Amino acid sequence: MPSDIEIARAATLKPIAQVAEKIGVPDEALHNYGKHIAKIDHGFIKSLEGRPEGKLVLVTAISPTPAGEGKTTTTVGLGDALNRIGKRAVMCLREPSLGPCFGMKGGAAGGGKAQVVPMEQINLHFTGDFHAITSAHSLAAALIDNHVYWANELNIDVRRIHWRRVVDMNDRALRAINQSLGGVANGFPREDGFDITVASEVMAVFCLARDLADLEERLGRIVIAETRDRKPVTLADVKATGAMTVLLKDALQPNLVQTLEGNPALIHGGPFANIAHGCNSVIATQTGLRLADYVVTEAGFGADLGAEKFIDIKCRQTGLKPSAVVIVATVRALKMHGGVNKKDLQGENLDALEKGFANLERHVKNVRSFGLPVVVGVNHFFQDTDAEHAKLKELCRDRLQVEAITCKHWAEGGAGAEALAQAVVKLAEGEQKPLTFAYETETKLTDKIKAIATKLYGAADIQIESKAATKLAGFEKDGYGGLPICMAKTQYSFSTDPTLMGAPSGHLVSVRDVRLSAGAGFVVVICGEIMTMPGLPKVPAADNIRLDANGQIDGLF
Amino acid sequence: MPSDIEIARAATLKPIAQVAEKIGVPDEALHNYGKHIAKIDHGFIKSLEGRPEGKLVLVTAISPTPAGEGKTTTTVGLGDALNRIGKRAVMCLREPSLGPCFGMKGGAAGGGKAQVVPMEQINLHFTGDFHAITSAHSLAAALIDNHVYWANELNIDVRRIHWRRVVDMNDRALRAINQSLGGVANGFPREDGFDITVASEVMAVFCLARDLADLEERLGRIVIAETRDRKPVTLADVKATGAMTVLLKDALQPNLVQTLEGNPALIHGGPFANIAHGCNSVIATQTGLRLADYVVTEAGFGADLGAEKFIDIKCRQTGLKPSAVVIVATVRALKMHGGVNKKDLQGENLDALEKGFANLERHVKNVRSFGLPVVVGVNHFFQDTDAEHAKLKELCRDRLQVEAITCKHWAEGGAGAEALAQAVVKLAEGEQKPLTFAYETETKLTDKIKAIATKLYGAADIQIESKAATKLAGFEKDGYGGLPICMAKTQYSFSTDPTLMGAPSGHLVSVRDVRLSAGAGFVVVICGEIMTMPGLPKVPAADNIRLDANGQIDGLF
Repeated sequence: MPSDIEIARAATLKPIAQVAEKIGVPDEALHNYGKHIAKIDHGFIKSLEGRPEGKLVLVTAISPTPAGEGKTTTTVGLGDALNRIGKRAVMCLREPSLGPCFGMKGGAAGGGKAQVVPMEQINLHFTGDFHAITSAHSLAAALIDNHVYWANELNIDVRRIHWRRVVDMNDRALRAINQSLGGVANGFPREDGFDITVASEVMAVFCLARDLADLEERLGRIVIAETRDRKPVTLADVKATGAMTVLLKDALQPNLVQTLEGNPALIHGGPFANIAHGCNSVIATQTGLRLADYVVTEAGFGADLGAEKFIDIKCRQTGLKPSAVVIVATVRALKMHGGVNKKDLQGENLDALEKGFANLERHVKNVRSFGLPVVVGVNHFFQDTDAEHAKLKELCRDRLQVEAITCKHWAEGGAGAEALAQAVVKLAEGEQKPLTFAYETETKLTDKIKAIATKLYGAADIQIESKAATKLAGFEKDGYGGLPICMAKTQYSFSTDPTLMGAPSGHLVSVRDVRLSAGAGFVVVICGEIMTMPGLPKVPAADNIRLDANGQIDGLF
Repeated sequence: MPSDIEIARAATLKPIAQVAEKIGVPDEALHNYGKHIAKIDHGFIKSLEGRPEGKLVLVTAISPTPAGEGKTTTTVGLGDALNRIGKRAVMCLREPSLGPCFGMKGGAAGGGKAQVVPMEQINLHFTGDFHAITSAHSLAAALIDNHVYWANELNIDVRRIHWRRVVDMNDRALRAINQSLGGVANGFPREDGFDITVASEVMAVFCLARDLADLEERLGRIVIAETRDRKPVTLADVKATGAMTVLLKDALQPNLVQTLEGNPALIHGGPFANIAHGCNSVIATQTGLRLADYVVTEAGFGADLGAEKFIDIKCRQTGLKPSAVVIVATVRALKMHGGVNKKDLQGENLDALEKGFANLERHVKNVRSFGLPVVVGVNHFFQDTDAEHAKLKELCRDRLQVEAITCKHWAEGGAGAEALAQAVVKLAEGEQKPLTFAYETETKLTDKIKAIATKLYGAADIQIESKAATKLAGFEKDGYGGLPICMAKTQYSFSTDPTLMGAPSGHLVSVRDVRLSAGAGFVVVICGEIMTMPGLPKVPAADNIRLDANGQIDGLF
């Protein structure tokens, strides 16, 4: 099998207007970025309001392991397969972040024969959306310090400025800085630091905004500091939101690209899946639903984080509702959940598979608890045995009455996921229950956290450190008690201990810190250490990235 | 007269392919960014090698005053006028920087009826070139600290890392920082700071590179630090150049837009005019010359800085040579050089004009000293009197035997600059002398500085502070003595005192510091305070920038 990049480069891409035509987007509504990428115009998107909407399919996964699950490839493969069986389907995916490309080799645009293209552009600057977000965030930072510099009429406490800076680069040296040094002309010295752009609240807001007006309002609600008398200061207070919206205007138009099979994919926005909700923009999803019979979209990490946030945050805020959920599993990863080390994965091991099945089982039950119909997509690896796949299907059927379908989209493209597509259509067009959430909007913040931990994570209880408890009480008092929760915990376990694989129970979820994301509209609950600025490895991928003699990019994938 | 933005918005733009066709760029060679902006493909540019080249016209100016000269409008008006009189002309301009848009209201894409469009995009993200430069610069910064973090095999002295960081934002708080704070995981604490992106050496390199290979080589030569034993460390040493070139690959393709009259303009690159050479990319200029009869381009600041650097740096490095030079002057600015305050400019004042003429006179003589034919373009303001224009023409003719031509492109578009276009054609198609430089390449660095100061600035001598002298000696010793000089001094005066208007003589040029830009290929000589990170004013333009009810940008221009 050739490499992902070789496959991507060998593909003949359709002009993007032709891809757009498939879903009824006329040429006038396209802003081209080269021949194979286009943004869809705000005006056209507005004209779609009130159109009947297609069905939403959410692709989520078991708890990730180093063996990999293949959520993005399954999303792409399923979308291609739906098109093959006669459904008009659009895929909605997150945009990759630039910075991490220079750390570890590898892109984020699917793989094998289930990829979105043009892969290089998508993984690098793409249409500049993340640059626009970085600019808007940086402008806000400059305006805050500028406000303090001149007269500080808002009485901002420089010790309590929560707005950090961002850059789309893995740069550990910027995690903690002292700034405004060097004398009077440079302002009031204070502590600060940089996160990577995907961790910016601007990114989260961008991905939850319904339109430009909503974007501006949400930006205005972001709390960036406290006054000397501990009142919240917002981005609206420092008059940043108009100019930030101007910087984000074009970026907010969803990006249209194509799969290797020439089907439309909207790749738009990409918030962190820990301190944010981890899925593509509402605008892209909504636009897709108004243009197609089916929208296939993915949520970050495992279903305990990605799907839960998709439902309790994104669906709750917007009224979206999946008609079917695909939980991606692999035999290899389930064996790891059953206790096998990565290096020992070779060879059939039905016992480990059955033991690790507990992880999948809990995810299936969790997703069903939202009232959603589920199918398991088993992403096939060539080392898997037939007996393993048969065993997994049997376990799913017998213990969960859920269908598990082997998918070979990585090797075969959409043809390899047709059975999954058929199953998805059956579920989505079958009887639907009303969507229920893990907690009610009116529930107190602490009880919301407890609901997630006990109902979905299998925890016995939660434990909130005193600093976090004080902050939660403050959020309730300041009127933010009605916000949903955004859990930031390890993706590797239902617990807060990344080494506890499978389906741990009876554990304690310890809440170390909480943060208010008032613009995005959630309270971030931090369990354990959360890294918002990655570093580079000893030998970063950048060392070997270059243009080859033909002007093609070498070393990136 | 409507405002610049009203004029720009009222214009009917041609599809960019139609503009490209005028200069023989086929559709396949275009990478569109929306309907009215395109990048010209590297492959097509390569295919132009060896083509006969058109004539280069450099637009420069008298020493700037608050009354304004209108270099960009003259460049655009002249280009439009050349097209009107039957010449195939392309304009080459610098890209505006994003950050300053949020400080002071106003764009940088010409004005009146002499503008390039689409103005909003050009002034904001445009095609993302500056974002790509920021990313490449940031990657280099991350790689340097990452090298030190892991094993520091190059033995980099963290006290002597010269590579600062950049952001395209006016943010004084970042001028001086302490970074890598917060403990072992974040690296070795050290002092650092941010410049605005246009001050990055990557920007200067970008604008001087002949092609991608030259770009990569130049990046590799950039000296970013010293070792503990004081040896220079380059970007090649930290293996940054391949990945940086990948990040800059698309950006290095020139951007094609149009004037209000539908003529082609290449807007590409925009280095600072103080610590760098201040003109658009060599690739854009070279491409323009191979596609058109005439390329009209501008250089930053007055002719003492912009034109001198254009010739001694850009022409010397590339073999380019202007066939004619337009020195832009205004009656109002010359009256200010003659001692009138801005508030007293109303009303005819022939005496002040004659007194201030000394500034223009020196610039004309300087440009002629390079062996170049000169014409003076007098940018007309409606407050000017006919007698003032007549006087200026007379002074030019009698004292300098140079033609001065009144231009009304601001009010009338290309039609208002036809006489200038005719004069330029006469010069450019007339007899040409060989280009001479202000100094020879082999001359010692100190003598180069002295040559510029005494021959062009009218200085009696130079005075080099001891720290700068030591560094210059070090550059000579390290093999950089053959580089040209890039003067960083006030643009308001021939001297280093910004209040000395007109044509001061006999002054001393004091050199406070010098910097090596080995990748760009020059030694920066700093006379006075040079600000590489601007701040925002008390009421920044950002406060009033917003989208209006029609989704149009309000408050930016």
